[in-house]
Amino acid sequence: MAKIIESVPNISEGRNQEIIEACVDQIRTTAGCTLLDYSSDTSHNRTVITYMGSPEACEEASVKLAKKAVELIDLTKHTGEHPRMGCVDVMPFIPIKDANTEDCIELSKKVGKRIAEEADLPVFLYEQSASAPHRENLAAVRKGQFEGMAEKVKDSLWIPDFGGQRIHPTGGVVAVGARPPLIAFNINLSTSDVEIASKIAKIIRRSNGGFDCVKAMGVLLEERNTAQVSINMTDFTKTPLYRVVELTKAEAARYGVHVIGTEIIGLCPMNALFNAAEYYLQIEDFDASVQVIENHLL
Amino acid sequence: MAKIIESVPNISEGRNQEIIEACVDQIRTTAGCTLLDYSSDTSHNRTVITYMGSPEACEEASVKLAKKAVELIDLTKHTGEHPRMGCVDVMPFIPIKDANTEDCIELSKKVGKRIAEEADLPVFLYEQSASAPHRENLAAVRKGQFEGMAEKVKDSLWIPDFGGQRIHPTGGVVAVGARPPLIAFNINLSTSDVEIASKIAKIIRRSNGGFDCVKAMGVLLEERNTAQVSINMTDFTKTPLYRVVELTKAEAARYGVHVIGTEIIGLCPMNALFNAAEYYLQIEDFDASVQVIENHLL
Repeated sequence: MAKIIESVPNISEGRNQEIIEACVDQIRTTAGCTLLDYSSDTSHNRTVITYMGSPEACEEASVKLAKKAVELIDLTKHTGEHPRMGCVDVMPFIPIKDANTEDCIELSKKVGKRIAEEADLPVFLYEQSASAPHRENLAAVRKGQFEGMAEKVKDSLWIPDFGGQRIHPTGGVVAVGARPPLIAFNINLSTSDVEIASKIAKIIRRSNGGFDCVKAMGVLLEERNTAQVSINMTDFTKTPLYRVVELTKAEAARYGVHVIGTEIIGLCPMNALFNAAEYYLQIEDFDASVQVIENHLL
Repeated sequence: MAKIIESVPNISEGRNQEIIEACVDQIRTTAGCTLLDYSSDTSHNRTVITYMGSPEACEEASVKLAKKAVELIDLTKHTGEHPRMGCVDVMPFIPIKDANTEDCIELSKKVGKRIAEEADLPVFLYEQSASAPHRENLAAVRKGQFEGMAEKVKDSLWIPDFGGQRIHPTGGVVAVGARPPLIAFNINLSTSDVEIASKIAKIIRRSNGGFDCVKAMGVLLEERNTAQVSINMTDFTKTPLYRVVELTKAEAARYGVHVIGTEIIGLCPMNALFNAAEYYLQIEDFDASVQVIENHLL
């Protein structure tokens, strides 16, 4: 029963390959961590790193990454389309195997404390680790971005959890927290009318009365001339993929539109697919933890 | 890249708990093997053992099991509904991880040779290990059963692959071979008319012109008063579960009948469920080996 936790730190550098590699190397060189992916977006000027490991290995890698990022990334010179507030902008921890939310919260607090002490970066705990409800949402924590953060932390509602009421002059502040696995999931429609995708996005997403664990917006895939509902599934254990697909089909039918395909971007946990198979195949009393052979190898 | 192979030996004892446990202990006490399940049927007088391990561990466990079975099980006194020809009746090897059919064929030949030499039991290689096409099908190999086997092996078509042209006086002969993972899959219908289940079984199974990798028959579940199509999926990589479910729905519709549920009995590989999720969710360009997080832990 070895606990495995995934982390998906975002760093505010997506253009300078040398800096990116130096940061990713902090994961590569930490024993007990497996680098799963890293991808940079030059217009966002941001790199998303995905890795997993034991809680101890994740703690080590997180602190090393923060130290390297604050050394190499200067936010006073950073431009990019994506909002950001720190050289390491956000550092989520996700339970993968034999670990639960409590383990990830505990890890986030250890990491937050050490990053403040060892990398001199103040830290906000966010999502499931947040110290107050208004600090759960990352967008709310990050509002004002790097440039507005020195002013923001003077507000008693926005004192960082670690590191004091200040920001690092070039490194800013970091959000660290536990969250469920997030699945980037897109649904492509048999139309180029992005308005239809936007209407469906509003219906399925929480912010307009839809599913609790869905964020969505309509976009046009220009190269395919296809309207797409672009979705973040923030907790598939509460809002499963199949339910979003079925509601999208039902709403699209009103316009004579159907689903032509879907996309899972990047990684997803096996259970997100098992529960779709269970639903559609109508499997009775299935227990994946016992009945799926490979689960006995994990 | 540690190779893992599954084995599902069937022993011809399903009543005497002491003998069953003594046989299962041969798996339990072999380092590198994980016992996944064992279940006995008293009317069949037969026990199905499921375990997995490295090829070396499976080889060791197989030989130990054969020695123990020939010591404790006397087929001259065996009665039961299920056809059988040996104290260990059949010993299939199935690739699970980082192993392929060739690995399982190689293992089956090593095991067959050692069982003949060390447990004094002649061995037929069957399925993907068979030395001739007429010896692939287990039912064909086993035809005549224990009582007819001494006569059968005199036929030049039925000389055992190891151990010579004879049978063990109380232990009979054993079938050893490589095969794809088999999934026991049942589809329950909204009718108690077993004739409808039987008609659908004939449509979906290979022997009447249906899917290549499907064996099926119609049965009545008396306790639920429900007709069921009882299926053996002999290779889900060629004939996937979802295709059998969808054809069953289409054929049942002719009778105004629908699928009320399905059952996966025992174990199944994760890929059998992933391909159902991919089909029904219409996921484009999905690569489970890369995109499913847990695959990086195997």
